[in-house]
Amino acid sequence: MARVYNFSAGPAVLPEEVLKEAAEEMMDYRGSGMSVMEMSHRSKVYDNIIKEAEADLRELMNIPDNYKVLFLQGGASQFFAEVPMNMMKNKKAGYIVTGQWAKKAYQEAKIYGEAVELASSADKTFSYIPDCSDLPITDDMDYVYICENNTIYGTKFKTLPNTKGKDLVSDVSSCFLSEPIDVSKYAVVYGGVQKNVGPAGCVIAIIREDLITDDVLPGTPTMLKWKTQADADSLYNTPPCYTIYICGKVFKWLKKMGGLEKMKEINEQKAKILYDFLDSSELFKGTVVKEDRSLMNVPFVTGNEELDAKFVAEAKAAGFENLKGHRSVGGMRASIYNAMPIEGVKALVEFMKKFEAENK
Amino acid sequence: MARVYNFSAGPAVLPEEVLKEAAEEMMDYRGSGMSVMEMSHRSKVYDNIIKEAEADLRELMNIPDNYKVLFLQGGASQFFAEVPMNMMKNKKAGYIVTGQWAKKAYQEAKIYGEAVELASSADKTFSYIPDCSDLPITDDMDYVYICENNTIYGTKFKTLPNTKGKDLVSDVSSCFLSEPIDVSKYAVVYGGVQKNVGPAGCVIAIIREDLITDDVLPGTPTMLKWKTQADADSLYNTPPCYTIYICGKVFKWLKKMGGLEKMKEINEQKAKILYDFLDSSELFKGTVVKEDRSLMNVPFVTGNEELDAKFVAEAKAAGFENLKGHRSVGGMRASIYNAMPIEGVKALVEFMKKFEAENK
Repeated sequence: MARVYNFSAGPAVLPEEVLKEAAEEMMDYRGSGMSVMEMSHRSKVYDNIIKEAEADLRELMNIPDNYKVLFLQGGASQFFAEVPMNMMKNKKAGYIVTGQWAKKAYQEAKIYGEAVELASSADKTFSYIPDCSDLPITDDMDYVYICENNTIYGTKFKTLPNTKGKDLVSDVSSCFLSEPIDVSKYAVVYGGVQKNVGPAGCVIAIIREDLITDDVLPGTPTMLKWKTQADADSLYNTPPCYTIYICGKVFKWLKKMGGLEKMKEINEQKAKILYDFLDSSELFKGTVVKEDRSLMNVPFVTGNEELDAKFVAEAKAAGFENLKGHRSVGGMRASIYNAMPIEGVKALVEFMKKFEAENK
Repeated sequence: MARVYNFSAGPAVLPEEVLKEAAEEMMDYRGSGMSVMEMSHRSKVYDNIIKEAEADLRELMNIPDNYKVLFLQGGASQFFAEVPMNMMKNKKAGYIVTGQWAKKAYQEAKIYGEAVELASSADKTFSYIPDCSDLPITDDMDYVYICENNTIYGTKFKTLPNTKGKDLVSDVSSCFLSEPIDVSKYAVVYGGVQKNVGPAGCVIAIIREDLITDDVLPGTPTMLKWKTQADADSLYNTPPCYTIYICGKVFKWLKKMGGLEKMKEINEQKAKILYDFLDSSELFKGTVVKEDRSLMNVPFVTGNEELDAKFVAEAKAAGFENLKGHRSVGGMRASIYNAMPIEGVKALVEFMKKFEAENK
């Protein structure tokens, strides 16, 4: 078995020991005589799995008691509709557009009411985070929405926007559990798990309880109403059981690694290795304004499309997978999520140095 | 490792060789250097997995070319809303209510228009399928809806209802791939995979192409619009990749077993063993009218709640898991899906005989 260094933006690398454990438990989960895939979601053994996953997540993120944790389906793209359906009482909300996913959320909200673009970095291909200290937020807005880490463009909000007292909704898909956050500063924090937490097929949403009500927009499907899911502890119907089980194992791994403070330290170390090289390189350069750089997604270019393609191909041949930039952007992108070992980043930089020497 | 006989109604038993293969491929899928959980859904290797899964399903079910196959999320419960959102042009549809899931679909449709109960078997606790040869279907109905196999009550439509030319929508969650069907008789066939096909977290929908349009109800989320999913071949956003991969393995297993004709034969054999015993037993009896009995879900009772509980407990101790009936019904239920070996059914009947002898 030869594992590659997998820089995929998502689905993405998972901790090896999580995968090993999952393989070992495949035929018989801890004496239950069955795989977790085969378990009734109403069984005691599965109930322990989902409850423990939630408890570990609450501990890791220090989630206050007045927030519910929901395990949902449909990806962030479905959640783009759930936010206005559940929150747009005044049919008006503000969106900060810092990339493709924020833009999709903004466009989806327009189906349901007045979505206002409060700020945007589209003018410079989303290569920075706009100033959010004094946004044109009005009193009748139901919430302010951000995508906190922009997977495609490699930017991240280093400080949260000044929402002028309005509820903040944040899509943290690509920075989920990469560092500690203060949940109490958000109304809703949510993310697809397939980048930093587990296999695709689950969204984890952390929602302040007062936002979970029967007062949703007319026409909201029962399954998309947060109250349905909250009242049933995410078991209104069969949840994505196996995906949640793997997420639970990742939570245990994060606890063992030392928690989110420690992960932040490691992630900063890893990112520094790559950014320092990009800043010193004569061939490669990062595409993002320094102060807004993501710790998770690092886009870079040579400035020459042919050379970019050559780099991606040679890197792949050398065991560095998925370095091609998003189809909408081009260039390269290294996603260095929690489970990417520091050795992977070091090896990538060594390979880039060699490529630079050969292609100057 | 001691595998139990798992009679769960869903999530449910999967073929052992599928689980073994999945365990073996966990760290390195066929030389890719990564788990299928870690793969970009846009990678060539994953594209092969999802394309092959679809091709195998089309072959198994003999799906006509003018039907799309979609891999969706949210379970049947979410699909209950998708049906009216995508199909209720006249805002009127007919529902045949043969159990809890049909009823939930019927109630969900009322959010979007006039849902008419065409027939029901609620009068006798859903223990039979009503006569559907001459239903009060009106010309302005957009479709007729059924739940073809009723997991909780153990009934199955042996002939499809006379829809008087209207499109038929069928939830086949608990009889998916248990026998051949003529897809061309349906407008939409769909099911959650977690009973007979794979792990929870995916719905497979087979939809006649002319029903997939931009003409959906106002307020339909982008993700719930079938056209979004069809145009992107189920890759509009990240699909439940690993779940689809396991489903694909199950399709291969079904082909190896001899296809759906052969599965029907085996399923009939298995069901006959259990039903014959129930018909001859003085202690146990089936709860469903003979001609409407499901091949997949077999509910039975002793007529004495304490004895039922004793049976479930002793069966569990002897390695027969999940025989307790649905919380809304009580009694017992043996779900004997495709992956339940005939030995499991024989062993269960032997155990029931012994229990009967001891408890007469």
